[in-house]
Amino acid sequence: MPPRTPAQNARLALLLEVAGTPKPGNVDRHRDLPDLRFDHFLAGTVGTERGLEMAAEGAAVGTAFERAVKGMAAQGGGNTQFGALLLLTPLVRAAREELAQPVVESVVEETTVADAANFYRAFEHVDVFVADPPEDMAPLDVRRGGDAVPTLEERGLTLLDVMDRSVPGDDVAREWVTGFERSFAAAQRLTDVDGTPLERAAAVFLSLLAERPDTLVAKRHGEDVARDVTEHAAELHDANALEADPDAVETFADELVERGVNPGTTADVTAAGLFIALEHGDLEV
Amino acid sequence: MPPRTPAQNARLALLLEVAGTPKPGNVDRHRDLPDLRFDHFLAGTVGTERGLEMAAEGAAVGTAFERAVKGMAAQGGGNTQFGALLLLTPLVRAAREELAQPVVESVVEETTVADAANFYRAFEHVDVFVADPPEDMAPLDVRRGGDAVPTLEERGLTLLDVMDRSVPGDDVAREWVTGFERSFAAAQRLTDVDGTPLERAAAVFLSLLAERPDTLVAKRHGEDVARDVTEHAAELHDANALEADPDAVETFADELVERGVNPGTTADVTAAGLFIALEHGDLEV
Repeated sequence: MPPRTPAQNARLALLLEVAGTPKPGNVDRHRDLPDLRFDHFLAGTVGTERGLEMAAEGAAVGTAFERAVKGMAAQGGGNTQFGALLLLTPLVRAAREELAQPVVESVVEETTVADAANFYRAFEHVDVFVADPPEDMAPLDVRRGGDAVPTLEERGLTLLDVMDRSVPGDDVAREWVTGFERSFAAAQRLTDVDGTPLERAAAVFLSLLAERPDTLVAKRHGEDVARDVTEHAAELHDANALEADPDAVETFADELVERGVNPGTTADVTAAGLFIALEHGDLEV
Repeated sequence: MPPRTPAQNARLALLLEVAGTPKPGNVDRHRDLPDLRFDHFLAGTVGTERGLEMAAEGAAVGTAFERAVKGMAAQGGGNTQFGALLLLTPLVRAAREELAQPVVESVVEETTVADAANFYRAFEHVDVFVADPPEDMAPLDVRRGGDAVPTLEERGLTLLDVMDRSVPGDDVAREWVTGFERSFAAAQRLTDVDGTPLERAAAVFLSLLAERPDTLVAKRHGEDVARDVTEHAAELHDANALEADPDAVETFADELVERGVNPGTTADVTAAGLFIALEHGDLEV
């Protein structure tokens, strides 16, 4: 069998992530949100191809990310995989050398102000839900898109600097400053659990949700809601509910979808973990 | 939005096809077969990329097809999209010029003995279910793979000649000799029906199944079974059951999966129709 390239594994990770079910609160194989459907994620994935190829070929992280987001946005559902791409782009870039934590750390450390500028430009392609920034960061509100670039340049902020200023409160950014700690941990869990790839994806999603409140949920619905969701996920996870009481997880999934509570950050980390596990040959499809 | 390339639309067509549900007897968003799962189709689709790009860049149909099949086969489920690729490859090739019936007719008319040889070599990558050939065609049994090439050359058979000898009994080959009649008709139906892309895919699949007995079902289970399946599909289609009595279609879908009756040829034509509709801008995701 010809091995898949890193960029192809990144696409497959995005597809396995969205298809994993039950993934409480998110679009999955069995659930759509009112305005965000499964087919939007399929089209979004196809759209990421060029950007991910650029990362695999050694393009700058910001350039590749902006291109991937632009392609992803070419469907009617809006933002499908912005956060996942912010993790996958440096991971695909690292896979050129070796997909290991120290390598991806050096990839993000080498990002520049130009990478940060392209990160801001990516927000012009798609509406991403973000919280208001603190007052001194207002000129760097990501919703300003490319208009923020002069301020970035003035302050000499690299993309890693921007990520650093986004934690706490954004667990995708947190991956950038912790050597993609949870992404690699997720990959290990994907290897350790049993089941088909989609069952593993669902199990690891639940374990991640049980571990830390989802930062997208916190931004949209407040920290109390995010904490409650994580506590419920932890109860289900501790009770091994996916095997012992799958209906309880399905009910939780339906309930979160009904309330519009979608743990998108947890899905992003799951996608990153899937990519790492695929690249390492630890997850066979 | 940057438009998707023809090769990208072909991948999206494969993804929308497998996700469309209910698609009686086949893997769909809600159903796996015992040894052939949804994730195998996702990985199969990712694997088709290089071959489809080759077709889009003007490679010979046989070369591109063989490469697409080789990549598709790089997953554990076996054959996922062989027939669909046999339709998509000439269609993607035609889209370089114009995706219209006369153009794809000229693409298949221009196939050579070398294309036929690569078609045979494609069978070495994956087990495809085929019936025994008539006695005079035994040296050209596709299961011989590349070993059949000397005979192909001796008889001077192009890929279109091979397809021509495969009808009746193979409705993928039939598309090649009828100007992709049902594929274009399917695209028109996808445009005419209502619903999300996945609902449209399911509706058009049912309409195709209602129209002609599936040739893969006939090969595997006999013509009586294939005719019964089509009669049942026609009853459901005529009763507008997908809207009026969706449970009846779901039950039919479960029943066919249980019996191991999977109308794969109908799925192939559905995928071709999805590609044409996407390319023509008649199906928005």
